[in-house]
Amino acid sequence: MPVNLSAPTPASLLPVNGMLLGTAEANIKKPNRKDLLVMQLTSQATVAGVFTQNRFCAAPVIVAREHLASGKGIRALVVNTGNANAGTGEPGLAAARATCIEAAKLLGCEAEQVLPFSTGVIMEELPLGSIVAGLPACVANLSETNWFDAAHAIMTTDIVAKAVSRQIKLGGVTVTLTGIAKGSGMIHPNMATMLGYIATDAAVTQPLLQQMVKHASDASFNCITVDGDTSTNDALMLIATGASAAPAITDADSAAFAQLQAAVTEVAIQLAQAIVRDGEGATKFITIKVEGGASVAECKQIAYAVAHSPLVKTAFFASDPNLGRILAAIGYAGVQLDVQRLKLYLDDVLVAENGGRAASYREEDGQRVMQQGDITIRVVLERGTAAATVWTCDFSYDYVKINASYRS
Amino acid sequence: MPVNLSAPTPASLLPVNGMLLGTAEANIKKPNRKDLLVMQLTSQATVAGVFTQNRFCAAPVIVAREHLASGKGIRALVVNTGNANAGTGEPGLAAARATCIEAAKLLGCEAEQVLPFSTGVIMEELPLGSIVAGLPACVANLSETNWFDAAHAIMTTDIVAKAVSRQIKLGGVTVTLTGIAKGSGMIHPNMATMLGYIATDAAVTQPLLQQMVKHASDASFNCITVDGDTSTNDALMLIATGASAAPAITDADSAAFAQLQAAVTEVAIQLAQAIVRDGEGATKFITIKVEGGASVAECKQIAYAVAHSPLVKTAFFASDPNLGRILAAIGYAGVQLDVQRLKLYLDDVLVAENGGRAASYREEDGQRVMQQGDITIRVVLERGTAAATVWTCDFSYDYVKINASYRS
Repeated sequence: MPVNLSAPTPASLLPVNGMLLGTAEANIKKPNRKDLLVMQLTSQATVAGVFTQNRFCAAPVIVAREHLASGKGIRALVVNTGNANAGTGEPGLAAARATCIEAAKLLGCEAEQVLPFSTGVIMEELPLGSIVAGLPACVANLSETNWFDAAHAIMTTDIVAKAVSRQIKLGGVTVTLTGIAKGSGMIHPNMATMLGYIATDAAVTQPLLQQMVKHASDASFNCITVDGDTSTNDALMLIATGASAAPAITDADSAAFAQLQAAVTEVAIQLAQAIVRDGEGATKFITIKVEGGASVAECKQIAYAVAHSPLVKTAFFASDPNLGRILAAIGYAGVQLDVQRLKLYLDDVLVAENGGRAASYREEDGQRVMQQGDITIRVVLERGTAAATVWTCDFSYDYVKINASYRS
Repeated sequence: MPVNLSAPTPASLLPVNGMLLGTAEANIKKPNRKDLLVMQLTSQATVAGVFTQNRFCAAPVIVAREHLASGKGIRALVVNTGNANAGTGEPGLAAARATCIEAAKLLGCEAEQVLPFSTGVIMEELPLGSIVAGLPACVANLSETNWFDAAHAIMTTDIVAKAVSRQIKLGGVTVTLTGIAKGSGMIHPNMATMLGYIATDAAVTQPLLQQMVKHASDASFNCITVDGDTSTNDALMLIATGASAAPAITDADSAAFAQLQAAVTEVAIQLAQAIVRDGEGATKFITIKVEGGASVAECKQIAYAVAHSPLVKTAFFASDPNLGRILAAIGYAGVQLDVQRLKLYLDDVLVAENGGRAASYREEDGQRVMQQGDITIRVVLERGTAAATVWTCDFSYDYVKINASYRS
């Protein structure tokens, strides 16, 4: 079950002016579930995004990058679940392009103005017929108030839908941000993928929006891990419809840029953490903070070594303060540490110093923290002033069960 | 249960002239089990070894490296299970040194001529009293014919003891090689560690022996992975007693060097594969061959990305040919591949080419191979002539069970 994660309510999700959403049951993999989403944008909207670095990136990722690069204003995004359209070669690319062509016909724009996204099984042919047949229903359903349905329409093995809204004032004008995301492994190549969409009615030039989504992604989705696998389909898109009355953001040094970037980043962090809290089989939400490093890179390297260690993750599942496993993971992270100077904390409990167990450490203190749903591992390196944080979850029987039995 | 792995018999293990072994029940962690081993070497023996790269390496690793570097001839090795003496700071170092001092007294040599090894829980104090009390029984038990008991005395969560003997002719003289190893995660920091000891009665100078153990280790223990965790205590030791009548090996370009190195490497591979076959919870033995790479390094990088992917490993556990997961892991390995040129085979079945599923691939062919206990994944890159092989196992409920419940 998700760790300390509550589901959004329809009323908690605010419409974003200048953006309509429509869903449909397209029978892509299973009947009787919303599995197709169209998002339509007003003509002045700007869109920016970051995509998976996987060399086997999916066909829709290739097409979405091309269409963003074409410089034509993006007017729509189409998302299907049930099939990742990855590892599908040339026919997969053709299917992704055909999806855009069909959506463009219905919406009265050019195919290059549509971005396609897919999530689901890899290396199986995209059922283009089902998608084409489902698009008119999505378009008929378009409305500003469909964020709740949209959050559900992009889910795969997610147990809880992930969505959040907030409002901030820019130059005295209220602007809205609403974001949705899916993914219950970060990353999860089988069911495929982390997908995130954050929209605001603020106006932002495309290059600044790109800068903002990169910043938000680095501080959120790039700091989470469930199993260390990186999907073929990951994408985080940031949409600025420009439909509010707030003045357009055109200067990266402006206060409005900083304010909006901070709000976007907070929404992204909340969605990213929701993905970990709903991680496959997760029973613990673990924050790993590495401080006092010589560089952010080495802090991240250590944090990920701990976050990816199956031995650490199974110990957390067992609520067993078998904390030597954390030292071992720190030790093999590849950083030329002086282990004598390192300190390891579990929440407020000092566990290790001087190369070994802290004199003050008592097993019952470790045990107490291990029982919690939310736990912080803090590693202090005493090598410099850099720091990094990574969020992850534990490794349970259910992780194996979910991933061993998904296709059958 | 171990995958296609049979236990050694006492008769299958040949004595190595010039080397005596003695075991005892020292009650280090549990009563009524052999948990302490002394190996005594003749005075002309040479010893070489490779050790873990983990920065939190265990106290016995630090002491063993020091003693090897001292240049005094090594006369004995002492191995305990039940406690890793890692993450134990200065007191741990003192305990490892004390173990050598006590063994040296009993054997009539200097402390620097003894190498200590430990395997077991990390970050708990070594029960030095139990070890000191157990050493006289080991010494009283010393015999050339105790290899079978020795293989058992170093086990932790291993289900099957790992030991192998072979004989080759060097310059017309028969020489013997016998090796033992333990470890059922590679690596397994909690129970701690892969340990391997290979002995021969051939005579080899120490620098050549070091070259030989490095070569053997790179082709065997450095090619296996169960969970990607690298222990604090790993060690592979190669012992040449020089007690046979074969001429001493003093030239790295000699035929005898090549022959013995090949035999040592084969023994090491057999022991390393045995560790994977007995991997925690393993139900499949998986060989990952990456061929046609621009360098061995990139081939290994891809092989390890596949071998470490929890999603790949759980699919193999389920015997589910969900082979897109393998493409995804190859894709995120960090090599700038042209995925169009890559070919993926499962045993003899061509699974993927031209960036997607092979036209000839049928699900039932994949399914057939996935049912086997031994499976080969072959990735052909078409980038060059380099190749690398990695051996691993699948990821099962039992892996989680063993590692979530070990300490409690």
